Amino acid sequence: MSAKMLTGEEVAKHNNKESCYVIVHGEAYDVTEFLPDHPGGQGIILKYAGKDATDAYDPIHPPGTLEENLPKEKCLGKVDMSTVKQEKKEESEEDKQIAKNKEAIPPLDQCLNLYDFEVVARQVLKGTAWAYYSSGSDDEVTMRENNNAFGRIWFRPRILRDVSTVDYSTSLLGWKSSLPIYITATALGKLGHPEGEKNLTVAAGRENIIQMIPTLASCSFDEIVDARTHEQQTQFYQVYINSNRAVTEKTLKRAEQRGVRALFVTVDAPQLGRREKDMRIKFDDVGSREQVENKDNVDRSQGAARAISSFIDPSLNWDDLHWLRSITRLPIVLKGVQTWEDTVRAAEMGLSGVVLSNHGGRQLDFARSGIEVLAEVVPELKKRGLYSSNFQLFVDGGIRRASDALKAIAMGATAVGIGRPFLYAYSAYGADGVQHAIKILKAEMEMDMRLIGAPTLKDLVPEMVDTRALNMHTSVPSTNAATVYERIGTAADPSGSKL
Amino acid sequence: MSAKMLTGEEVAKHNNKESCYVIVHGEAYDVTEFLPDHPGGQGIILKYAGKDATDAYDPIHPPGTLEENLPKEKCLGKVDMSTVKQEKKEESEEDKQIAKNKEAIPPLDQCLNLYDFEVVARQVLKGTAWAYYSSGSDDEVTMRENNNAFGRIWFRPRILRDVSTVDYSTSLLGWKSSLPIYITATALGKLGHPEGEKNLTVAAGRENIIQMIPTLASCSFDEIVDARTHEQQTQFYQVYINSNRAVTEKTLKRAEQRGVRALFVTVDAPQLGRREKDMRIKFDDVGSREQVENKDNVDRSQGAARAISSFIDPSLNWDDLHWLRSITRLPIVLKGVQTWEDTVRAAEMGLSGVVLSNHGGRQLDFARSGIEVLAEVVPELKKRGLYSSNFQLFVDGGIRRASDALKAIAMGATAVGIGRPFLYAYSAYGADGVQHAIKILKAEMEMDMRLIGAPTLKDLVPEMVDTRALNMHTSVPSTNAATVYERIGTAADPSGSKL
Amino acid sequence: MSAKMLTGEEVAKHNNKESCYVIVHGEAYDVTEFLPDHPGGQGIILKYAGKDATDAYDPIHPPGTLEENLPKEKCLGKVDMSTVKQEKKEESEEDKQIAKNKEAIPPLDQCLNLYDFEVVARQVLKGTAWAYYSSGSDDEVTMRENNNAFGRIWFRPRILRDVSTVDYSTSLLGWKSSLPIYITATALGKLGHPEGEKNLTVAAGRENIIQMIPTLASCSFDEIVDARTHEQQTQFYQVYINSNRAVTEKTLKRAEQRGVRALFVTVDAPQLGRREKDMRIKFDDVGSREQVENKDNVDRSQGAARAISSFIDPSLNWDDLHWLRSITRLPIVLKGVQTWEDTVRAAEMGLSGVVLSNHGGRQLDFARSGIEVLAEVVPELKKRGLYSSNFQLFVDGGIRRASDALKAIAMGATAVGIGRPFLYAYSAYGADGVQHAIKILKAEMEMDMRLIGAPTLKDLVPEMVDTRALNMHTSVPSTNAATVYERIGTAADPSGSKL
Amino acid sequence: MSAKMLTGEEVAKHNNKESCYVIVHGEAYDVTEFLPDHPGGQGIILKYAGKDATDAYDPIHPPGTLEENLPKEKCLGKVDMSTVKQEKKEESEEDKQIAKNKEAIPPLDQCLNLYDFEVVARQVLKGTAWAYYSSGSDDEVTMRENNNAFGRIWFRPRILRDVSTVDYSTSLLGWKSSLPIYITATALGKLGHPEGEKNLTVAAGRENIIQMIPTLASCSFDEIVDARTHEQQTQFYQVYINSNRAVTEKTLKRAEQRGVRALFVTVDAPQLGRREKDMRIKFDDVGSREQVENKDNVDRSQGAARAISSFIDPSLNWDDLHWLRSITRLPIVLKGVQTWEDTVRAAEMGLSGVVLSNHGGRQLDFARSGIEVLAEVVPELKKRGLYSSNFQLFVDGGIRRASDALKAIAMGATAVGIGRPFLYAYSAYGADGVQHAIKILKAEMEMDMRLIGAPTLKDLVPEMVDTRALNMHTSVPSTNAATVYERIGTAADPSGSKL
Repeated sequence: MSAKMLTGEEVAKHNNKESCYVIVHGEAYDVTEFLPDHPGGQGIILKYAGKDATDAYDPIHPPGTLEENLPKEKCLGKVDMSTVKQEKKEESEEDKQIAKNKEAIPPLDQCLNLYDFEVVARQVLKGTAWAYYSSGSDDEVTMRENNNAFGRIWFRPRILRDVSTVDYSTSLLGWKSSLPIYITATALGKLGHPEGEKNLTVAAGRENIIQMIPTLASCSFDEIVDARTHEQQTQFYQVYINSNRAVTEKTLKRAEQRGVRALFVTVDAPQLGRREKDMRIKFDDVGSREQVENKDNVDRSQGAARAISSFIDPSLNWDDLHWLRSITRLPIVLKGVQTWEDTVRAAEMGLSGVVLSNHGGRQLDFARSGIEVLAEVVPELKKRGLYSSNFQLFVDGGIRRASDALKAIAMGATAVGIGRPFLYAYSAYGADGVQHAIKILKAEMEMDMRLIGAPTLKDLVPEMVDTRALNMHTSVPSTNAATVYERIGTAADPSGSKL
Repeated sequence: MSAKMLTGEEVAKHNNKESCYVIVHGEAYDVTEFLPDHPGGQGIILKYAGKDATDAYDPIHPPGTLEENLPKEKCLGKVDMSTVKQEKKEESEEDKQIAKNKEAIPPLDQCLNLYDFEVVARQVLKGTAWAYYSSGSDDEVTMRENNNAFGRIWFRPRILRDVSTVDYSTSLLGWKSSLPIYITATALGKLGHPEGEKNLTVAAGRENIIQMIPTLASCSFDEIVDARTHEQQTQFYQVYINSNRAVTEKTLKRAEQRGVRALFVTVDAPQLGRREKDMRIKFDDVGSREQVENKDNVDRSQGAARAISSFIDPSLNWDDLHWLRSITRLPIVLKGVQTWEDTVRAAEMGLSGVVLSNHGGRQLDFARSGIEVLAEVVPELKKRGLYSSNFQLFVDGGIRRASDALKAIAMGATAVGIGRPFLYAYSAYGADGVQHAIKILKAEMEMDMRLIGAPTLKDLVPEMVDTRALNMHTSVPSTNAATVYERIGTAADPSGSKL
Repeated sequence: MSAKMLTGEEVAKHNNKESCYVIVHGEAYDVTEFLPDHPGGQGIILKYAGKDATDAYDPIHPPGTLEENLPKEKCLGKVDMSTVKQEKKEESEEDKQIAKNKEAIPPLDQCLNLYDFEVVARQVLKGTAWAYYSSGSDDEVTMRENNNAFGRIWFRPRILRDVSTVDYSTSLLGWKSSLPIYITATALGKLGHPEGEKNLTVAAGRENIIQMIPTLASCSFDEIVDARTHEQQTQFYQVYINSNRAVTEKTLKRAEQRGVRALFVTVDAPQLGRREKDMRIKFDDVGSREQVENKDNVDRSQGAARAISSFIDPSLNWDDLHWLRSITRLPIVLKGVQTWEDTVRAAEMGLSGVVLSNHGGRQLDFARSGIEVLAEVVPELKKRGLYSSNFQLFVDGGIRRASDALKAIAMGATAVGIGRPFLYAYSAYGADGVQHAIKILKAEMEMDMRLIGAPTLKDLVPEMVDTRALNMHTSVPSTNAATVYERIGTAADPSGSKL
Repeated sequence: MSAKMLTGEEVAKHNNKESCYVIVHGEAYDVTEFLPDHPGGQGIILKYAGKDATDAYDPIHPPGTLEENLPKEKCLGKVDMSTVKQEKKEESEEDKQIAKNKEAIPPLDQCLNLYDFEVVARQVLKGTAWAYYSSGSDDEVTMRENNNAFGRIWFRPRILRDVSTVDYSTSLLGWKSSLPIYITATALGKLGHPEGEKNLTVAAGRENIIQMIPTLASCSFDEIVDARTHEQQTQFYQVYINSNRAVTEKTLKRAEQRGVRALFVTVDAPQLGRREKDMRIKFDDVGSREQVENKDNVDRSQGAARAISSFIDPSLNWDDLHWLRSITRLPIVLKGVQTWEDTVRAAEMGLSGVVLSNHGGRQLDFARSGIEVLAEVVPELKKRGLYSSNFQLFVDGGIRRASDALKAIAMGATAVGIGRPFLYAYSAYGADGVQHAIKILKAEMEMDMRLIGAPTLKDLVPEMVDTRALNMHTSVPSTNAATVYERIGTAADPSGSKL
């Protein structure tokens, strides 16, 4: 054993605000000065002061977080882990309940649709993981609207067409996919399962659909690429442009080298949204009395979202796209476009496409759904002669059925992205769960195309959907107001409480 | 007793996967090789391996199913039933509850409307039967919409017209009916009652309305025809075109011989829909742990629907109608038309009519209701001079009140079909229940026509209904999303669970 | 004591189907032959066979019912009531509960709006009375819509107008009223209170509003007229035209003699609606097992409604109005008009007005609300130069607030009718309740007119209301379908029952 | 001690209707003759007859109420408080529950949005205070609509704009504000917290937003002005024009002297609305049996609202504005404008602006929301060339999120007012709570502007919001009707109670 190695005892002395060491992946770090800057609050770090924090650190910090946020000298070197006192972790009530739920999990075959995975995942995920995955911003109006919007689109199915064979394969930006559906980028995959995003890679490979690799993955980029099941497996890459352009440049070079086929630049997140469900559970996690004393800082704790996003550049604008094109030959697609005006601009710039998306309802609340935006985008592109296979339209948000995808295709999209349902699928069942989810979508796709009378995706024409109600937002969305508002009383029950 | 007869003991030896015999209607069958192909899964067959399966087989297999699916040599001949060990069937908890419910069934007179039969049937039907009858496809959005759509149509009643006598009789394709309502085709009638579809025949005969005989009946075609209460009783025939055209040809010849008056060709079911309620109960029925092992096959068990429909030809198209017309002189009506385009084409081809229908919400979810389609069909037919008594329009789906029928008549339909409510009526009360249901409709019909100011069906004109809201789908349908979505928390109740 | 008088003992012998006497108001009647014709079923009569039926008979039979339905010889003459055995009535559970509720009734001052009376009345009315008063036809869609429709009308209030004094008095057909609100006709007033309709007369007299006397009152016409609190008190008369025109002619003569000021001829009830809530409670009241045996007669028991309406002439038509005008000089208003076409015709005939009404949602379900019809009527009248003070428009149905009345006035009505709320008010608090209800309306009226910026009713102009949403029936009404429809299951809860 | 001083014993003798003294702030008053005129009813005064009423009097009577309503001679002079018997106040159940709730109050940091304050305040406010603050008029339809209306407006966010710095500061009537949000005037601030409106002043000062001082404050005008945290702190003044113009004139002079910067003249309250929740709790507070005897007076008790508003002049009209302008040089804004017609008139008169408002849903029910009125106002102003920075538009009602404010700004408003949420914030947490609420709004504002792509308020243009659904009132508002309406029964459950 090297003389340089720290011992657990040495580290353990630095267990307070004045001097705070933590061990992560066998290395000790002095985080004393970093404490007040920790986006998740200092309370959560102090819980591990002088101890091994690896298990808590791992799922919510993408690889490299520590290295990027701490000066080099704060890394104190390797620790002799045999000298570190093993905490005997007491199983929490939540852990026990989850263990029990896991035993009662329904067999995978009983998951008949994508909603089922959500219900099952709810029972086996830790509260913090569930909150991070399932939350939307503010009143979660947009999050729900994403799904609701599809409910305002109805089919006009044709009959007596030969649908003995049905073909739902297509190509995205020139790359084959067995479905007009791809796995979109979502962050912090290890919150749901130790294999994290690799579950998605494996299932996508087996079923021949395309995965979009996220910048904020829990697994490293290389781990995800290495998980490919075969050489031809196509992967796209979602990128947040870093304030430090050099970092982005390096990242993209690596992506190209590893055979990534397209870049999806996120443009709807100059700042991450306030996801209150996620924020509330943080208070539960850390002793919250302590925090109330820091009255001057509203945003001290914003949950996992804030913890991982501080590097995103809020100054990113159209001019930066010239730079971006100068450093990569990959096709560029803007992810998070929300108006026809910006779509037209992207097409005029010669980009390869846009994803009409509101970030799964996690950014601006009361942003419209991608599918609604699609309805305004297509006519404007056609009017300008910009609607062509060289500029593809993608939609994500709220897609839970193959029929949702088919609505988008009929309206003019090339493919749709699905995020959360696949996270839930592997949270509950690993890669097999994701694969089963994809198989369900294929089974639905085959049935739906037969019943619509469209043997191939090309046969899905605008006349097959009735979208007249799509932009009629006459229903009042359910906000917190519905929760706080009181029932009206009557003479027989003045307080309204009896009813 | 013939020497050829098998004994129960001999059959009983073949009680496993390696060699599996079952007895149905006194004959033994070797189903060993058929096991993996059984649409309902092999588990349910193995439950009866070596035993008499007649009671389980009968209600969910239309007559002839075994004969059509097994090679002749697999029929091993008659069994001496006196040598078959009588299983003493233990009454299940469900059976006990149903028996109890049957004793508490409300007197028939207390059923005041068609909804009442549904409520009562729910209490006396086995779970599997209820699931098969009551389920719709996917999120059951279309199933509910069928009823909801009528709720967006309002009356404009006229006053001071002599309505002392009211006449709601009419004729369908030239055949008299006491009501502008017929009994539409539904499958597996014995799930609800041992007499199956014959209950419908008897009640239709007594009340002089027309029954459409289903291809997938539990009773044989001849049994249903033989059940007529009088010679002039009119019956139509619903037909699925078989991949084997010879089978269809033979069937239609027989139908003509037995005096069937019209053919209703189902065109909305090239593949049967995924009815998840039906599928879920299958998992309950069979040991589901076993099934989870067959991960590679999403569709192994799709409930009763899949079990009975494998012969339907998905390649059926407009050209086949020429063949169909060449083999029968009966008037042909397309059942399951869902756009004005296809209706116009059917009229131009000289067919006798169409049923605007989405198969009771059991096929494509988010298909529009027949009544909504009617509103777009009539103007297009009129524009082309195709709206005439030679081409009749029928509507089914969601009709529960005479007022629903009257809305359709005023909008231009000749008659409407009712399915499930009559199934529920005989499930609870036999043929008398169906008759009572028809009487209720007549009582409602008389009242409504008086109150609308229309003494005959001809007096029902388009101006009597306000359909402006019919195609305004602004309400968000209730999908599984409503079930999985969580309440929002507050500072006083972070998880939202207290409310 | 006269020798002709019957004794209780003699009557008591006729206590069965073969010979059935009943005593009503001290006279014996032989109803043996009438039994099968009793609209309420024979069961309820047989309960009183050989006994004094006065208490049960009185509240649900308008004066003269027995006399009009039985041949003279069936009246057997007076009974010596001292010889009639006093039944010791056992107090039912319901009676006990009602007595208890009556003690806990909130002080009248705590009734702050018209809804309050409904809540209180619900607690003190017998189930049968509540069912008769509160029920609507079929799914009660129109009944609810009557109120909902006002919810789609919004105000455009004006500011900075001198509203120090507010005047909401008006005149109806030339007769002064302190409010643009009248008490409309409703039947069977004694179900709610022993003084029946006289409660309304007294309150109307005290507060100077106009009462419309119903044909089907529990009190006799003369009793209601005699109850006037002062000589100038105005009353109108609602009339059902009898199949026997001579009866109507006699009735109207009497009405003129007693100073009635106008006739309101009901035109929306050639047959009474099926009010299922009312019908269901009848089954509870009478032994229902007995009834199920009479399978052939769907309509045997239709609750109180059918019991009182058999004389109404369903052949009544526009021509009959000439006869009506020939026998009376009173102004004639049609009650129950539901389209602009019929309104225009009434105006062209020179009648004095119409009530746009659907009979409180008790007749044709899915008839539109009177207030919605008003919106289509006024422009059509104006277009034809028929909108003038000589032809007045009234609206009833769903009015619960002074603001509802003001909406109607602004849209062009002269006044609105209120029915059920006043019934509920006296059911709970007698005439004082009705008076309090009127005072509430006056207080609301004063406040609302101030806040709208309209010191007099003439200042209420169409621009003060936004009615654009009034005819947009996009919400799905709540029918029985909502009750029978099942929740969707999930993999974690296949039957959907856990949620 | 002066000989003139009254003793507690002397006062205590006048403890009944015949002679009733009360002590307020150490002075005795003879209120015997005033008893029947007390807007809150005499019961509540008699409870304190002969006693010190200061604690009960203070929070619901603005300073000077007693002096203005009693003749001078009824003030009997100072009382030697040492001789007044100390009532040992028994803590009520409510007091105990509130004390308990206060201990469990969530730390301020856990309040993540403005709704949270409402939830917390509900737990720590007395029932009477809650009822006064939270109530709206009639069915509270407008109160809810104020919030719902924002739910019908959706964003059209732009991407790829440099939003690294965001500036949400603005100026109102020429005065700087750190937010386009001001604290609007609300009455009776001490009901929620002993410091009353001063909490608002302090927080507004700290965060540099503008407070509008209410006429009906619990604190005196001077107390509120004195509470300013710095000299440049801007305050506006909300004024009810008094029937006695001299009082108003004096008030405004004082306001000018103390540096108030603008006058907001309330024009939507010639009479205060009936807030039934507030009225119902009054009955609970005072013995209500007594009141029922005063049948002739519907409006005897109208809660806190009526108690404080009797001086407001209902004759106020446009002409009075000339007088108003003659007595002050302050800019005048009309508060409570609800149509474009009145807005145009105000602009043509040269006033400085209007607040489009319905008084928080506390006045005319079914008045439209301010934000809906804004949508009709802006085009009409533009059409007439009246839309300019010299005439500013403000909106209040229902604003709970920064996004609500941004919607209004994009549509053409200068700023929006927030009332109740700030009351709730200080009721629960004092001035710190209000400051935290403002900080939350700033955090939301920064995030939203980034996500909308608008770095300054000027970048918020009409194209950024989709308001097409704003005036589509197709949803039926939830009135008392929803409470009183009954579920429909079925044959299996005739009363509908089992469901």
